[in-house]
Formats: sequence, structure tokens, C-alpha cells
Amino acid sequence: MKIVILDAQTITKGDVSLSSLEKFGEVVTYNLTKPEEIEERIKDANAVICNKTVLNESNMKNAKDLKYIGLFATGYNNIDVEYCKKAGITVCNAGSYSTNAVAQHVFALILEHYSSTSKYNAFCHNGGWQTAETFSPFVFPLNELSGKTIGIVGFGAIGQAVAKIALAFNMRVLAYNRS
Amino acid sequence: MKIVILDAQTITKGDVSLSSLEKFGEVVTYNLTKPEEIEERIKDANAVICNKTVLNESNMKNAKDLKYIGLFATGYNNIDVEYCKKAGITVCNAGSYSTNAVAQHVFALILEHYSSTSKYNAFCHNGGWQTAETFSPFVFPLNELSGKTIGIVGFGAIGQAVAKIALAFNMRVLAYNRS
Repeated sequence: MKIVILDAQTITKGDVSLSSLEKFGEVVTYNLTKPEEIEERIKDANAVICNKTVLNESNMKNAKDLKYIGLFATGYNNIDVEYCKKAGITVCNAGSYSTNAVAQHVFALILEHYSSTSKYNAFCHNGGWQTAETFSPFVFPLNELSGKTIGIVGFGAIGQAVAKIALAFNMRVLAYNRS
Repeated sequence: MKIVILDAQTITKGDVSLSSLEKFGEVVTYNLTKPEEIEERIKDANAVICNKTVLNESNMKNAKDLKYIGLFATGYNNIDVEYCKKAGITVCNAGSYSTNAVAQHVFALILEHYSSTSKYNAFCHNGGWQTAETFSPFVFPLNELSGKTIGIVGFGAIGQAVAKIALAFNMRVLAYNRS
């Protein structure tokens, strides 16, 4: 089996090993693939794995042995699934891989904003604390998460992970879910 | 009763009201007090409230009516408590006021470091994302808290609040307490 990875650089700069794919067959890895390079690179592939590379009828039509497209992503809007259905190509996305990372990122951004972290960091590095009149110079806004309300739209795995952290910060949680 | 606040600026730039003290008597508020100004400012005070101003025998000896020193802080190393005991002055510190704020600050700093938040913020503001080759440019280190171990030395109210948040991030918690 020939497995072609089209955009490995979108998920790793070398810190993530993709070697486990080798037990399934020959693996050809490209860091990135330009639109005009796709057709040639996948033409004798049995499986293609990619993240954001756009695959459509035009660049897949000569890949006669292609049976499987695996995505390094949850979204699959870059894949022409209608064509894949007609051509008998299975398309699989990757769900739930980023639950902890996204929940962490939500609070990294909230705290950067609420605690003015990078502003105080720069202030201290520039000698602001040493030369301040008071022990606790209030130069930038500081707000406390405790007691504040967070609204979460979408209450799947990620929304629930965000809620769990918010509750640990003593926040009030309001969540909305279609179902 | 005359209440003298010596360093209001150390706790507020106007966002915190100290007016509740007025029901106990006349309140005189100074933003900051230099060492050489203390003696004169507290000489007819019944109560002194401060944060970091240093009060010792030398600057309190003429404050014959002083019965109470209240601190805007948990630490009271700026107060000569031995002299206060001899002079019959009650000294009260403020505990537990910062539990949520300190726990929040711990994670603000951890996430600033672990998620390279301010670096990515600057990168995006400088157009780095728009001009990046890939959708997810990994320019600075990104690390996940989930599964990591946090060590907490001192497991009082603040340590426990930190542990609660760490557990919500799916961290492993090791805590040490004298007792």
C-alpha cells in the first residue's frame, strides 16, 4: 500500500512522529503541497493523509487506486466528499484530539486579557517594578475571574472541558447546546 | 475616633471604595506617606491603616492615643509588634483576601509560559499569521498542561485553590504541607 502525506508541516516541525503509519505500507511524506503539485503526487496513492490541502474531482480524477483520505483535522471542508462518495473513497476526519489543548488555549487568552499578563511582564522587564512608587503598582487593568459568568456556545467535549476549568476558577457557567 | 490611612494608593487607584470606614469615625486618607512624614500624620490617630508603611517605636512613640493598626495585607513585617504589645496597640492583618486572585495569577503565568500567549499575540499582530505558509504556524513552543505534574509547596487556602484549577486542567497534583 502507498500512503502519501501531503502537508506534514501543518502538524509537526519534527516533534510528532508519524512512523506508526509505516506498518501499513510505503509512506511518502511531503512537508507541503501546492495545488498544482497534488495530482502528480497522489496519482498512484492508495491512501492520502492531509490537513488543509484541498482535494477535489479535478486533482483526484487520475488517482485511480485511491481508497482512503485521512484528515489530520476535525474539519473536512477541504475535501470534495460528494466526489469521494461517487468514487468509492472513504474519508475520515479526526475528532476529539484537541479537547485539552483548546480548553487550555481558551484560558490562556482569557488570562492574558484579564490579568494583563504580557503587559506586566514587559513592565517588569523594563524596570517598572524596581522604580515604582508602591510595592504593587497597578499600571494595567486587573480583573478577577472568580464570580464572573462565562457563556459557552456548543457543549461537546471542548465546551465541557472549558466549563470544568471555569468552575475551578469559581466562575458561573452558562452553556448552550443545540441538542 | 480618628482613622488615618497612610498608603491608600498601594491598594487602589480609585476602583476600591474605602468609605465603609467612615461609619467608625473621621477618616484621613493619604495616598502615600514617606518615612519622615509618619510621626506627624499619626500623632493624634486612634487607628492607623496601612499596607507597606513601616511603623516602629521611633515614629509611633508620640502617637499616645493609638490603639489599633490595621493592615491591608497578610504580612505584618513592617510593624514593630513587640513595641505595639508594650504600648497596648492591637495589630490586625488581613488573611485570605487574595485566594482567588493569587490562584488566577499562578495560572496566568503558567499559561503565558506554556502557551507562549504573548509571543503568538505579537506574531499575529505583526501579520505573521496572514503571511505564514501553513494554517497553524508553530513559531514558538506550545506545551499542554494536561498530564503534567504540578508541585505545590504550602497547601492552605491558596494552595488548595491552585490544586483545584490544576485538576480541572487534568494535571497531576503533588502538594506539601508542614502539618
